[in-house]
Amino acid sequence: MRAEKIAEEYPVVTRDSDALAAARLLAEHLLPGLVVTDRGRPCCVLPASQVVRILVPAYVQDDPALARVLDESMADRVADSLSGKTVEALLPRDMPELAVVDVDDTIIEVAAVMARLRCPLAVVMDGDRLAGVITASRLLRVALTPH
Amino acid sequence: MRAEKIAEEYPVVTRDSDALAAARLLAEHLLPGLVVTDRGRPCCVLPASQVVRILVPAYVQDDPALARVLDESMADRVADSLSGKTVEALLPRDMPELAVVDVDDTIIEVAAVMARLRCPLAVVMDGDRLAGVITASRLLRVALTPH
Repeated sequence: MRAEKIAEEYPVVTRDSDALAAARLLAEHLLPGLVVTDRGRPCCVLPASQVVRILVPAYVQDDPALARVLDESMADRVADSLSGKTVEALLPRDMPELAVVDVDDTIIEVAAVMARLRCPLAVVMDGDRLAGVITASRLLRVALTPH
Repeated sequence: MRAEKIAEEYPVVTRDSDALAAARLLAEHLLPGLVVTDRGRPCCVLPASQVVRILVPAYVQDDPALARVLDESMADRVADSLSGKTVEALLPRDMPELAVVDVDDTIIEVAAVMARLRCPLAVVMDGDRLAGVITASRLLRVALTPH
């Protein structure tokens, strides 16, 4: 079984995409993350947990007990943290390496790349074109299905 | 908005659960991870990527190119790696701290705990009882919905 057969469509944003639109995409599809492209090439994943991180002021992250005394609503936090920003501004500084596989790679090769990078998803490339994404659970489903 | 209102049901396994059954649960529901309990208390998350890791021999993780020469099918790898094992045996040694919140915590408190631990989900406790789970994308959905 080749990566091409396992890959699925997955929402993609660019580094220049609107931050609020990206958050809405994560929220609407209840996704753990979005694939981010840079000049057409996937460069990283924006995890939903990173967007949550942006909503929380640094002093509250350091001491979550202070969240009780934050006199702002979550809607205010969303507006303050995301409005007028790009996806670029949300990306963590220490971005983990993206797992990239080829459409011709076998399921074991995909598993090997995911395993090495401890990545919950791999991006499948057909030359320069993004062919889709394989999540770890999707890979498990294929691995566990008799063929 | 309190954590109790945001929490959702989520599959749970114990440390003693069968590893293959846990993999099937991840595959069937296409989940990024499972909550693992130890004597009734949630202790950690088993990520789907960790199960994928278990399927790949260490020498192939070190050099994914060797996956090409692995003369075993994925079904063999699943049987070899998971049969007769418990969830305990699959858990990574360096387990990240689990984000645990209380049913009475506000959405900002939940976000703060998730943000501090860079966790994609938080476990919601009602005293000693697991009341549910809040994923980062679920939190974003609630945060972005006008109330």
